[in-house]
Amino acid sequence: MIRFRQAQHEDVGPVFGLLKDDTLGQTREMDDIALYYAAFDRMLAEGNNHLIVGEDENGCVVATYQITFISGLSLSAARRAQVESVRVASHLRSQGLGHEMFDDVRARAIAAGCSLIQLTMNQSRKDAERFYTGLGFVPSHTGFKLYLDG
Amino acid sequence: MIRFRQAQHEDVGPVFGLLKDDTLGQTREMDDIALYYAAFDRMLAEGNNHLIVGEDENGCVVATYQITFISGLSLSAARRAQVESVRVASHLRSQGLGHEMFDDVRARAIAAGCSLIQLTMNQSRKDAERFYTGLGFVPSHTGFKLYLDG
Repeated sequence: MIRFRQAQHEDVGPVFGLLKDDTLGQTREMDDIALYYAAFDRMLAEGNNHLIVGEDENGCVVATYQITFISGLSLSAARRAQVESVRVASHLRSQGLGHEMFDDVRARAIAAGCSLIQLTMNQSRKDAERFYTGLGFVPSHTGFKLYLDG
Repeated sequence: MIRFRQAQHEDVGPVFGLLKDDTLGQTREMDDIALYYAAFDRMLAEGNNHLIVGEDENGCVVATYQITFISGLSLSAARRAQVESVRVASHLRSQGLGHEMFDDVRARAIAAGCSLIQLTMNQSRKDAERFYTGLGFVPSHTGFKLYLDG
């Protein structure tokens, strides 16, 4: 049984480990942990943007995701819950932990008054597509990224 | 020439008009304007979530978009600029206003310290796909939505 909770400052190290423990993350995460502590402080300052960790019975962080609550005028003035950076420790994948995580996502989204949950998935993550459609997510959109120079 | 600026309370009505002036918006926007004023107040309270309007030389609001600055640990502790709810008045479409709008998006993203801009597009908007790839956006992701009951 995994307990999901808001991350604290001391969780930044384990979350960094989970980000590196990923096919895409291996190459695109830097090794300077100070950057990640600074990003966590920025998240806290934003208020509507939360880093969540899942810890096992021994208190070890084995999963993480980010959830941002975004109010807006469109979709009949919907508040959205946006999920980013979903990671599960490699030795625990495909064992149902993702379902527990998304039960937690759904509960936090409802508590924050959201009427939809949205996320994007890199198209190279084929297993993830089956996982999300299995949870009832509809792949109705194309997700675009534009990286800024410098 | 269109001037883009932060929306004020009195812009909620014109923005609501732009949301309704849209193929998908016709059916999914409600007619209760009070909901939209309340959503605008929630956006202001969130701090990192901004409604932008474009006004013409006569001070008329002819375009809108939403930009949310989202810090996070992944992608080497990147701050993202997320764009939602891009709308241009129907009589001004396909005249280059979208390019002016995305110059404004890029400037605001850079000023906020973001290293990427991201957005999703309903796959029924085929013209929009050409527009975004023309701006340099890469359609690398699938965008999933899950609507919550009640």
